[in-house]
Amino acid sequence: MISSLKRFLIGRPLKSTELGEQRLNKKKALAILSSDALSSVAYGPEQILIVLATVGAAAFWYSLPIALGVLILLIALILSYRQIIFAYPHGGGAYMVSKNNLGITPGLISGGSLLVDYILTVAVSVSAGTDAITSAFPALHAHNVMIAVFFVLFITLLNLRGLTESATILAYPVYLFVVALFILIGVGGYTILTGQVSPELHTPMGTTVTGLSLFLLLRAFASGSSALTGVEAISNAIPNFKEPAPNNAAKTLIAMGSLLGILFSGIILLAYFYGIAPSEEVTVVSQIAEGVFGRNYVYYFIQGTTALILILAANTGYSAFPLLAVNLAKDKFIPRMFTIRGDRLGYSNGIIILGFLSILLIIAFKGRTEQLIPLYAVGVFIPFTLSQTGMMVKWFRERPKGWLPKLLINSTGALISFSVTLIFFLTKFNQVWPVLIFIPIMITLFKKIRKHYDEIAEQLRISTCEEATPIQGNIIIIPIAGITRVVENSLNYAKSLSPQQIIAVHISFDKEEQKKLEEKWGQWQTGVRLVSLHSLHRSIIQPLTKFIDSIERRTTGSNYQVTVLIPEFIPKKGWHHILHNQSSFLIRTVLLHRKNVVVATVPYHLKK
Amino acid sequence: MISSLKRFLIGRPLKSTELGEQRLNKKKALAILSSDALSSVAYGPEQILIVLATVGAAAFWYSLPIALGVLILLIALILSYRQIIFAYPHGGGAYMVSKNNLGITPGLISGGSLLVDYILTVAVSVSAGTDAITSAFPALHAHNVMIAVFFVLFITLLNLRGLTESATILAYPVYLFVVALFILIGVGGYTILTGQVSPELHTPMGTTVTGLSLFLLLRAFASGSSALTGVEAISNAIPNFKEPAPNNAAKTLIAMGSLLGILFSGIILLAYFYGIAPSEEVTVVSQIAEGVFGRNYVYYFIQGTTALILILAANTGYSAFPLLAVNLAKDKFIPRMFTIRGDRLGYSNGIIILGFLSILLIIAFKGRTEQLIPLYAVGVFIPFTLSQTGMMVKWFRERPKGWLPKLLINSTGALISFSVTLIFFLTKFNQVWPVLIFIPIMITLFKKIRKHYDEIAEQLRISTCEEATPIQGNIIIIPIAGITRVVENSLNYAKSLSPQQIIAVHISFDKEEQKKLEEKWGQWQTGVRLVSLHSLHRSIIQPLTKFIDSIERRTTGSNYQVTVLIPEFIPKKGWHHILHNQSSFLIRTVLLHRKNVVVATVPYHLKK
Repeated sequence: MISSLKRFLIGRPLKSTELGEQRLNKKKALAILSSDALSSVAYGPEQILIVLATVGAAAFWYSLPIALGVLILLIALILSYRQIIFAYPHGGGAYMVSKNNLGITPGLISGGSLLVDYILTVAVSVSAGTDAITSAFPALHAHNVMIAVFFVLFITLLNLRGLTESATILAYPVYLFVVALFILIGVGGYTILTGQVSPELHTPMGTTVTGLSLFLLLRAFASGSSALTGVEAISNAIPNFKEPAPNNAAKTLIAMGSLLGILFSGIILLAYFYGIAPSEEVTVVSQIAEGVFGRNYVYYFIQGTTALILILAANTGYSAFPLLAVNLAKDKFIPRMFTIRGDRLGYSNGIIILGFLSILLIIAFKGRTEQLIPLYAVGVFIPFTLSQTGMMVKWFRERPKGWLPKLLINSTGALISFSVTLIFFLTKFNQVWPVLIFIPIMITLFKKIRKHYDEIAEQLRISTCEEATPIQGNIIIIPIAGITRVVENSLNYAKSLSPQQIIAVHISFDKEEQKKLEEKWGQWQTGVRLVSLHSLHRSIIQPLTKFIDSIERRTTGSNYQVTVLIPEFIPKKGWHHILHNQSSFLIRTVLLHRKNVVVATVPYHLKK
Repeated sequence: MISSLKRFLIGRPLKSTELGEQRLNKKKALAILSSDALSSVAYGPEQILIVLATVGAAAFWYSLPIALGVLILLIALILSYRQIIFAYPHGGGAYMVSKNNLGITPGLISGGSLLVDYILTVAVSVSAGTDAITSAFPALHAHNVMIAVFFVLFITLLNLRGLTESATILAYPVYLFVVALFILIGVGGYTILTGQVSPELHTPMGTTVTGLSLFLLLRAFASGSSALTGVEAISNAIPNFKEPAPNNAAKTLIAMGSLLGILFSGIILLAYFYGIAPSEEVTVVSQIAEGVFGRNYVYYFIQGTTALILILAANTGYSAFPLLAVNLAKDKFIPRMFTIRGDRLGYSNGIIILGFLSILLIIAFKGRTEQLIPLYAVGVFIPFTLSQTGMMVKWFRERPKGWLPKLLINSTGALISFSVTLIFFLTKFNQVWPVLIFIPIMITLFKKIRKHYDEIAEQLRISTCEEATPIQGNIIIIPIAGITRVVENSLNYAKSLSPQQIIAVHISFDKEEQKKLEEKWGQWQTGVRLVSLHSLHRSIIQPLTKFIDSIERRTTGSNYQVTVLIPEFIPKKGWHHILHNQSSFLIRTVLLHRKNVVVATVPYHLKK
């Protein structure tokens, strides 16, 4: 039943050979991998204005030079990441670059921050999208958390169904959003150019503003830069592209950068000319749309696609997280299960963990995840800085043909990213300090896991020189609860192994019951010795381990192996299990961990 | 670590022979088993007044005849249950009486209703007590649910520590409450008798009241009767008494009945003479206490002990539920695990389940469990009615010496209980209808469980005539993931069993990896054949079961047994488990359930 539900939800398992068909063409990849970056257009310009508004509307013209700064940063990042794509065509992005050029710890800092960041992306963007929807339908407001969780589950499921399928479904809303914003910018720009917008709405550039500090400007710049989170996603997800993967990825990256740049500048300019002030109730994009179109169907189209893209921004996390996790898992810094492909050839463990953790975050923050945005931005700029620095080192070390311009691009990227990171710490320390705690914890954990795997590998390696000593004989212990067909079945099996000795052990809590069983056993005549152990404390495990100890003591010197054979009947229906004593599970777990005995379960299948 | 935490929380395990010391003397038993009934005094009179208040203060004098009715019902119930105690000295109360005299279904209705009722008792009384506390400290109000859950956990833990220990701790508050109310009734009565209370405060008896219907009076009576829930608890818990258990239980029952009668009448009379009207903010008992003492330390003493007893009323559930569950489990209507005594000789599974389910209820109702009170009252009066009817049948059938007065007592009890049940359905149908749904569901479930146990017993019985056919040979399959010491260890063990055939099976997802392994295996020269299976869908289970099928087909005709030997390394620390593939768990579970193979785990213990 469970397996047919699974089939229904995620589809039939795909063959490993179908992997090629699961790769994305540029159009779909752009939709899936840029939804995070593009969605930032919906709130990035607003973030700048919110900071400037603390001084007054006169300061709004500063949004233009600030936006210019963000654009320069965008260009530097896009060009830098383009180089990373060609240098590390198997993906892994910042993690691979940092690890290979700067060392393991910087690599882990990059990889770890990004892993956490993708979880934050999912939580933050789905919550923001849900907010947008419940603002339109206030009756739903009380169910914010539930709706957000539902969306996460939905996106998780889509991703478990496989990449191409989710891309096909999710591409539409992304392109609709782009079209919607192009219409908005086009029509809005036309009205401005034709002088239909009153020039009194905006303060002219260069107006002096009292009370505006450098600190505030930097803060506004940092806030605006958070619109650039997500540009690294493509570099992590190169293996998802159709061949030639690096070329396609690079082209997609350029397309994304251009779209992002145009939309971001457009919104900033419109906001400036329409003299829009950020408000608690209505978003900046919504105000612009209302100014340009009034509240007609185009307005609702823009609002609707914006809500959708906010939710779908989460999908970028779903594409990048599992692939980044694979890279970390292959290097044994996180559990190996992240390297296993699921039924639909996606790395399903990564997808499921990502969904699970972001649901936890949404519930913990009761759907109010805005507080996490700065944390999330700084979590991206740290790996930005590290990866560009790594590329600098690489060019300097390898000096291939034409390395100087490349070095220059990455140096610019590194410098600006580093500055933004610093600005974040300087201007928003009270929101970003957790990074300073969780990054070291994460690095320690990664290294501990690696150490464990290394130790295991060491211990499991077979050295050809020493041979294992053969086992000289077997002693079989069968714990029994009564005289039944199940026990008969196990005795039968034990005899077929022709061991040195078979001992049935009965642990009783009650002297009378014990006597009765012993008598019955005598009459049964199986030829197997029964040992009765009385348990004063009504524990099964304790007397059993003691008994095994005594047997081991008796056989010291010779290499005897003790096997515990557990007779177990298997009911026909799953729910019947709760009706039966779970002792066998307990016995198996405890004995395997505490003693050097083999534990075997001999099933007896019931017919009804 | 877990086991030492357990030791700390519930104490060292007790020997089965210490059972006698865990029994209760009358004083402690009265405290533990009557807390539920006595606590009703804190709200029972109020319930009557609330119904009467809907007509007006002039109707309050009706509380006196209604209280008289409740008292008569109380006397009938106490005398009836006294007879049940002697007739069924091993406990089980209403369940045993109904089952033995009326049949299995009535028995299950009684037992099932009471089981659910004890869960409701715990949830309702702890929530009420928490309310009383947070009313005094409004700052805590937002944490109601958490505080209630904490109390449930606390009481659960106390009960897991064992009966005598919890009784010792919980006896004080119960007796303090009784003392507090005696002081209140004594001083209050004195002031009334000495004429210090203005006679204008109360409407004289016999005043005609317009708008008072019979329906309303019945409703008030039913509400007042809910103060009698809990009087059945002693009859369920007889085995917890010191010997002679039935005599001690009967005496405790009489003591409880007398206390309950005196306190209930006292509060009703005081409320009447002080002319107290029920209010949303202040309870009736609190108003009386304020009227008698003003807000001095005696007032706070009364309030404090009232809050405490409301919480401790839950404890009655903890004494009665597990013992009732034992009776049902012995008859195989609920899982057998309820018959197992825990470390401290209490039926810990019952205690834990009770705590767990009441916490669920508290969380589901967000601590506002008052809505459950009528449900809970009707859940008691159904077994009241059935058990008294059962006793009637018993006396009529057996006709022992002096059976007529006994029959009379039980008939009265049955008649009144039945009337109250009817009144509940007539006057509060919108609150009690769920009973009509969940009782049939429960009965069906009980019978299904019984049927399952019966079928199992049938299938497991060994018939002496047919002998099991001996196994002719063993085939051992070892699924391997690589060539390691763990595999070496398993091969070594397999060889020691001298089976007909050993086959190592490797399931690969990757052709290249497969080739490499095959080569390495060849060089290793173990003498064991390696079968490589390629899994197109990256599943381990599917190719493995198919392979086992093919082996079974080959050996049809001869009675060969297939054993799957799973090599497993056991890491030193528990948390390391999550770092390793859980395939072995999956293989074991699936194979045991689907195929007739023995599954053995060969552990390889790591040193670091």
